[in-house]
Amino acid sequence: MKNIKIAYLGGGSKQWARVFMTDLAVSEDLEGEIALYDIDIESAVCNQKIGANINLSPNTKSHWDYTMCENIEDALKNATFVVISILPGTFNEMRSDVHAPEKYETYQSVGDTAGPGGVLRSMRTVPIYEFFAQKIKECCPKTWVINFTNPMSICTKALYDVFPEIKAFGCCHEVFHTQDFLCDILKEETGIDAKRSELYTDVIGINHFTWITSAKYKNIEIMDYMDDYINKFYEIGHYEHGPADAYKTDSFAYANRVKMDMYKRYGVLPAAGDRHLAEFMNSSWYLDSPKQVADWKFALTTVDFRVKQQHERIEESIEMAEGTKPVEVKKSDEEAVDIMRALLGFSTKICNVNLPNVGQMPGYPLGAIVETNAVFSNDSVNPITAKPLPIAPTNLIMRCLYNIENLYEGIKERDLDKIFASFVNQPLCSKLTLTQANELFKEMVMNTREYLDEYYELDEYFDK
Amino acid sequence: MKNIKIAYLGGGSKQWARVFMTDLAVSEDLEGEIALYDIDIESAVCNQKIGANINLSPNTKSHWDYTMCENIEDALKNATFVVISILPGTFNEMRSDVHAPEKYETYQSVGDTAGPGGVLRSMRTVPIYEFFAQKIKECCPKTWVINFTNPMSICTKALYDVFPEIKAFGCCHEVFHTQDFLCDILKEETGIDAKRSELYTDVIGINHFTWITSAKYKNIEIMDYMDDYINKFYEIGHYEHGPADAYKTDSFAYANRVKMDMYKRYGVLPAAGDRHLAEFMNSSWYLDSPKQVADWKFALTTVDFRVKQQHERIEESIEMAEGTKPVEVKKSDEEAVDIMRALLGFSTKICNVNLPNVGQMPGYPLGAIVETNAVFSNDSVNPITAKPLPIAPTNLIMRCLYNIENLYEGIKERDLDKIFASFVNQPLCSKLTLTQANELFKEMVMNTREYLDEYYELDEYFDK
Amino acid sequence: MKNIKIAYLGGGSKQWARVFMTDLAVSEDLEGEIALYDIDIESAVCNQKIGANINLSPNTKSHWDYTMCENIEDALKNATFVVISILPGTFNEMRSDVHAPEKYETYQSVGDTAGPGGVLRSMRTVPIYEFFAQKIKECCPKTWVINFTNPMSICTKALYDVFPEIKAFGCCHEVFHTQDFLCDILKEETGIDAKRSELYTDVIGINHFTWITSAKYKNIEIMDYMDDYINKFYEIGHYEHGPADAYKTDSFAYANRVKMDMYKRYGVLPAAGDRHLAEFMNSSWYLDSPKQVADWKFALTTVDFRVKQQHERIEESIEMAEGTKPVEVKKSDEEAVDIMRALLGFSTKICNVNLPNVGQMPGYPLGAIVETNAVFSNDSVNPITAKPLPIAPTNLIMRCLYNIENLYEGIKERDLDKIFASFVNQPLCSKLTLTQANELFKEMVMNTREYLDEYYELDEYFDK
Amino acid sequence: MKNIKIAYLGGGSKQWARVFMTDLAVSEDLEGEIALYDIDIESAVCNQKIGANINLSPNTKSHWDYTMCENIEDALKNATFVVISILPGTFNEMRSDVHAPEKYETYQSVGDTAGPGGVLRSMRTVPIYEFFAQKIKECCPKTWVINFTNPMSICTKALYDVFPEIKAFGCCHEVFHTQDFLCDILKEETGIDAKRSELYTDVIGINHFTWITSAKYKNIEIMDYMDDYINKFYEIGHYEHGPADAYKTDSFAYANRVKMDMYKRYGVLPAAGDRHLAEFMNSSWYLDSPKQVADWKFALTTVDFRVKQQHERIEESIEMAEGTKPVEVKKSDEEAVDIMRALLGFSTKICNVNLPNVGQMPGYPLGAIVETNAVFSNDSVNPITAKPLPIAPTNLIMRCLYNIENLYEGIKERDLDKIFASFVNQPLCSKLTLTQANELFKEMVMNTREYLDEYYELDEYFDK
Repeated sequence: MKNIKIAYLGGGSKQWARVFMTDLAVSEDLEGEIALYDIDIESAVCNQKIGANINLSPNTKSHWDYTMCENIEDALKNATFVVISILPGTFNEMRSDVHAPEKYETYQSVGDTAGPGGVLRSMRTVPIYEFFAQKIKECCPKTWVINFTNPMSICTKALYDVFPEIKAFGCCHEVFHTQDFLCDILKEETGIDAKRSELYTDVIGINHFTWITSAKYKNIEIMDYMDDYINKFYEIGHYEHGPADAYKTDSFAYANRVKMDMYKRYGVLPAAGDRHLAEFMNSSWYLDSPKQVADWKFALTTVDFRVKQQHERIEESIEMAEGTKPVEVKKSDEEAVDIMRALLGFSTKICNVNLPNVGQMPGYPLGAIVETNAVFSNDSVNPITAKPLPIAPTNLIMRCLYNIENLYEGIKERDLDKIFASFVNQPLCSKLTLTQANELFKEMVMNTREYLDEYYELDEYFDK
Repeated sequence: MKNIKIAYLGGGSKQWARVFMTDLAVSEDLEGEIALYDIDIESAVCNQKIGANINLSPNTKSHWDYTMCENIEDALKNATFVVISILPGTFNEMRSDVHAPEKYETYQSVGDTAGPGGVLRSMRTVPIYEFFAQKIKECCPKTWVINFTNPMSICTKALYDVFPEIKAFGCCHEVFHTQDFLCDILKEETGIDAKRSELYTDVIGINHFTWITSAKYKNIEIMDYMDDYINKFYEIGHYEHGPADAYKTDSFAYANRVKMDMYKRYGVLPAAGDRHLAEFMNSSWYLDSPKQVADWKFALTTVDFRVKQQHERIEESIEMAEGTKPVEVKKSDEEAVDIMRALLGFSTKICNVNLPNVGQMPGYPLGAIVETNAVFSNDSVNPITAKPLPIAPTNLIMRCLYNIENLYEGIKERDLDKIFASFVNQPLCSKLTLTQANELFKEMVMNTREYLDEYYELDEYFDK
Repeated sequence: MKNIKIAYLGGGSKQWARVFMTDLAVSEDLEGEIALYDIDIESAVCNQKIGANINLSPNTKSHWDYTMCENIEDALKNATFVVISILPGTFNEMRSDVHAPEKYETYQSVGDTAGPGGVLRSMRTVPIYEFFAQKIKECCPKTWVINFTNPMSICTKALYDVFPEIKAFGCCHEVFHTQDFLCDILKEETGIDAKRSELYTDVIGINHFTWITSAKYKNIEIMDYMDDYINKFYEIGHYEHGPADAYKTDSFAYANRVKMDMYKRYGVLPAAGDRHLAEFMNSSWYLDSPKQVADWKFALTTVDFRVKQQHERIEESIEMAEGTKPVEVKKSDEEAVDIMRALLGFSTKICNVNLPNVGQMPGYPLGAIVETNAVFSNDSVNPITAKPLPIAPTNLIMRCLYNIENLYEGIKERDLDKIFASFVNQPLCSKLTLTQANELFKEMVMNTREYLDEYYELDEYFDK
Repeated sequence: MKNIKIAYLGGGSKQWARVFMTDLAVSEDLEGEIALYDIDIESAVCNQKIGANINLSPNTKSHWDYTMCENIEDALKNATFVVISILPGTFNEMRSDVHAPEKYETYQSVGDTAGPGGVLRSMRTVPIYEFFAQKIKECCPKTWVINFTNPMSICTKALYDVFPEIKAFGCCHEVFHTQDFLCDILKEETGIDAKRSELYTDVIGINHFTWITSAKYKNIEIMDYMDDYINKFYEIGHYEHGPADAYKTDSFAYANRVKMDMYKRYGVLPAAGDRHLAEFMNSSWYLDSPKQVADWKFALTTVDFRVKQQHERIEESIEMAEGTKPVEVKKSDEEAVDIMRALLGFSTKICNVNLPNVGQMPGYPLGAIVETNAVFSNDSVNPITAKPLPIAPTNLIMRCLYNIENLYEGIKERDLDKIFASFVNQPLCSKLTLTQANELFKEMVMNTREYLDEYYELDEYFDK
């Protein structure tokens, strides 16, 4: 197929864009245009130049036209796919999201999904997604839309609520890492070397708080080995992508102690990085203090760290754009391009994905965004019914899922009291008194109001 | 009807039995036998004597034979109704339930339904209810069973789980008090004097955490006046059965500040006393400290207070049994006897009641015990479908409902790890670290093991 | 209450209006205005005059102003209640509805609810109800709307679909007759004389195809006597309002043989007149031929009969309007006024009623119009969850319920192919070949096109 | 894998066994034992000999030990898979099933799934499946069980009802033929030559009455071409496996006219052979008379035809067993072996399959056996949620699904009245009067009582 057009909203992305562009470059059979759209035009232009350099790589199998669109309609028109990966606000807002709660001894390891940070980030992001959904409805209503932005659930919810006929889904690689972890367990316990693509895992939950109820390698159920494995590794921990103590220097690393602890409690395995998992539990469990975090062997990712990392990435991007640094063109572990190929009819692919619940998670509210496996095939995605969880983890998911439902309704109605009801019911806010929670919420809204004033009547709210 | 037999399990009750016996005594048309069964035989005998004295009262319209049964089968055989109102354990166990958590700055205002105390009390009570259900199945499978014991939901759950064909329901007067409060609001706002029996309130939730979505007096919706009323009374509070500061001396009193606060947050009115409501929210909200409790204008009911009260009641009972103190024979505000009359075909009665969800609360799990209105009529109880709540309070109910479902499963399976998963997920345990929660749970189990050892493998658990 | 306004759409009604007006006249406490609106102005004026004469009766307790509104907005404005009871089309259309299918040996005993007649009548009526719903939304969105028009289910569906916030329900007295029948059974079997108001019947189903799963008089379950009763009366039959062979001369009468036959098959009692019940079953069961109908001891109500009856009623109406014949002012057995009193807060009333399914019939599609008991009280109606039916009658109801859902969608979309899919799936059409069904449908549409052309593209359809 | 054991219940099968055995013989990687169990020992021995000869074929890649088990426990013990393919009763019973109703002008094209024949066959088969389920529970509770016997739905239902933890599913190739038909449409309309394995079809329904809502070949939706195709082929018909008039000589052939007719009515494509589809509709539609059947261009498969065919097959089997006729060893179009390979972890496979509804068909009763796509993978089968059907075909499915649910309950309870309620509600019985249906049912029971007396109290029933 030579005439594919991919509209990339947030096409100035420093990290994910490059992975995606190289994955496309090594994918045979597909060619066409990648239309980069970003409010940060400079970054989009930079990625356009990097794209041109990718086309020059000897590893490149498919050559794409990288175009830069100054308005969203140009990007969307005639698109075969829309991919969305944006960062709403700047590091200033992220700094407030992540660090403002620390004054109240409320720590966040990520701060972009659940917890106070997730709520504030949702408040900035959802209105933009309302706009995207409206534009997609107008410009390309039958186009497949793939979301990569966090908070995943609520962004996907917004797309479907504004435009119910949209063909959208949300992709996230968190589960992949847990699959890698399961491969390590398999290796440790049986000596068998398997790749995660060889496992069949049964996935159920919501984004960043998914669970695996069964993990099969051929006729081996890896879950049968968990107790034994955990007996050995609970204390020292294990990290699937590095040494167990990598978390000491790499603030994205973790030793899976949180994951193993939750498995011990519930008998099923949560399938996201420990940094994410911890944020879905009461703050006293794993995030009570920096000391406790270190004991659980994961890290609080600071915004300073992110700023520094971003700075390096920008420099690297410029070098790649200017051709002073080569772009490494090789297949990543991401599955977005594989999914696109399946939707184009090249194959059938099963992958975990975020979609409205139409029955794949029986007993959970219909229409809520849930993450289960689904079958991608010729122009279709069909969710697979998930095996049920025990009651206790079901309860944990329900709480967070309804928090998101309520938060979405609050944002949609621009009702700050309703939003606050979700804020204060975040497990991470469980130690806060009502007064503290209220102060913190107002403070975080104030800190980030540059990106909120357009949508909410803040003065009125603060006057109350 | 002259040949009614009421089997009273827990017939030695010091308080509720007398109310029930006098309500029966003033109910025309009904007569027969009240078969008192209690493991505390002395107390049952005492109530038997009080019954004899009630029969002598000039206000008494129906004379009953008060019999004392030493074994449960005698009590149950040929019963028209079984009523159950027991206290599992002694004040020693209750002292642990209520006060042990205080060491961890976890305060409870009641400690018999939710929170750590509710979990421990469930552990003692459910196995007894398993026994009751089995005996009812054997001795009187078609008899109506009315439960008054707390924790209401899980006791009723046990009856239905052990004997699914049982004709059982749970009665609780907490909603009545909120109806009295609504009458006071109506009076304050419109000048209209109404009795709670003249209101129609739409009830939804779980026991002690029910909510009223609509309260109609004729064509007046009292909810329409709530904002105005709360503006006036939020700070000073109001108590439907006494002065607003009654809580300072009466540890059962409260000023409805918690209730009004929750209404402000959610737009619907929780319908239980503030002492109960507070226990369904994170401990930091209303029960963070004795100081905070006083600010919210309710009280922590101590077990010392209960012991003293019980002591007085026992003395009073003895005097009444011996005839040195007269029994006041008059209709109470309780509805149990009215419900029994409706089931006997004398009338049709609508009342809130605890029953398995068969659809009356759409969207909630089927089979969970929920509290809504129901129609009592000739030998039948039919739950009325409840109007839905907003998302945020739905979430609060779901969390507690699933906690109960999981707790019940844990007790049924005698699985202390599963029980602990409900313990630690109690909103009142939200400040505790995992270590603290674990210590506290073990401590509370140890404190009350005299009443647990029969059912659980505690040594094995503590050895792990 | 002196200031009640009742908007009566179809206020020229010859029969039902008079019952309703006299029931209001003997209802103490209520007074106000009855605003008659009808496209047949003459008939409305006639009822207005009858109303004036009712006001003169010595039995009259409440005096009403009977006004005649030439446009619907005047009638609806400020109404306390809207009642709707219309006849769409004339006897010419009804003649086609009822008798056209006879050419294909398809007989109908009523022809206004199910079967080919019910479909055609729906096609004429639903568009008018779309108009009513729109007008109610505009003029009196918070007013209670009571529907009496057949086909009941689809008319009520239209009201809710066009205006989801409408406060509407449908009232039908068919169940009352079965309750009378149950009283006769009670009398026969136990000697007890009871009135239907003393029974509590558990009702489930759809209009004219409701079922009673339990009928309690005090603590007697009348269903326990059914087998014995039916053994005695299955062959000879029994009619609750006259002799068993009344059907020979009164084409509204029946001997309950169909009802008893269905009870024998399914173990639960269908609760409508045999004339209606027969139309929900395959035509070969009870309506195969006039001979078979006579064997089952009910009658085919002919339109000639109805024309004659109507003629008498018109004459009677004129006499009553002119005062040459007195209006008998006494309470009927209808419950509409009792329900209105309950909604005004005078009482709490339980009655079977047609409402969208919100959970009162678990397992049936939400939003479909179903008939169960409900509680009417101060400005509210709350459906009562119904006890489930066995699978076989559930299946019968589901088929007809989905037929209505599909028929409604077809009418809403003005899609004659979709409408035909419901037509041909009517149990009464089960003997027809596709060719016959198609011919019959087209013929019936042609016959009644005077009342259809406004809404449907018939020429286009016939050209296909 | 060298140690696979397949227990084949019904291992004397004349047709399906050979297909299955050759498919296994050409499947690389798999080897082990095929344990043939059949009450017809002679036939099992014959298949054992054929197996030995298959092992000699040059095309054979995997050699299997064919053993013959005289008792079922030996066959089941240590089995990796159980496959079940039995014929309950003889051709005498089948003759009654298929032809007895013809006396009442009720014709059946197959008579083994729906209609009177399907009911009677269920009555013979389900008790045997109760036995199988019990034996599997005892001997090999964790073994995968694949059912091929008709009536598929009710057999699978019996397995799950008797042993809820069973790992069973039902396989049927009917959908495959419709996929071949869709390939022919694709070829006709676009010129593209595709194999059915290249399509992705969305499947929903119950066995032999499944529907396809979407059929994708790459990014082409074949449904978009249906109207055009049907315009051309509706009259002349088309058969995917031969000439359009093959039905004249091959009583298994059909011209897809029924299928196209149903597509025109409902906008979605039923996915089974016309002979099956016709049996799910009222008898007047496609099976009113042999003449009508011929007009719709399909055939009534007579039992004489089957007897003749069986006779040939037996002769052929004997020749193959004796080695006088070679066994053709090549891969068939069946997917059973592919599915087994997927369950063993060799691949991931998506295929339509019969399973209890756990949410894959939202809105349909949970626990009913439904047919949708599912993912087969390492030791797991996970159903895929199906896209919903329009209301009218939903209604058709619901009717038949509830008929099966009721029929199953009736057989389980050995309640012939309940069974008759499903019999008379078969669409194919829609022309029968109650008297005729009753006579026919009793006649068919009498005809086949040799295979029923063991399970049902027939004398008692006939005496009523």
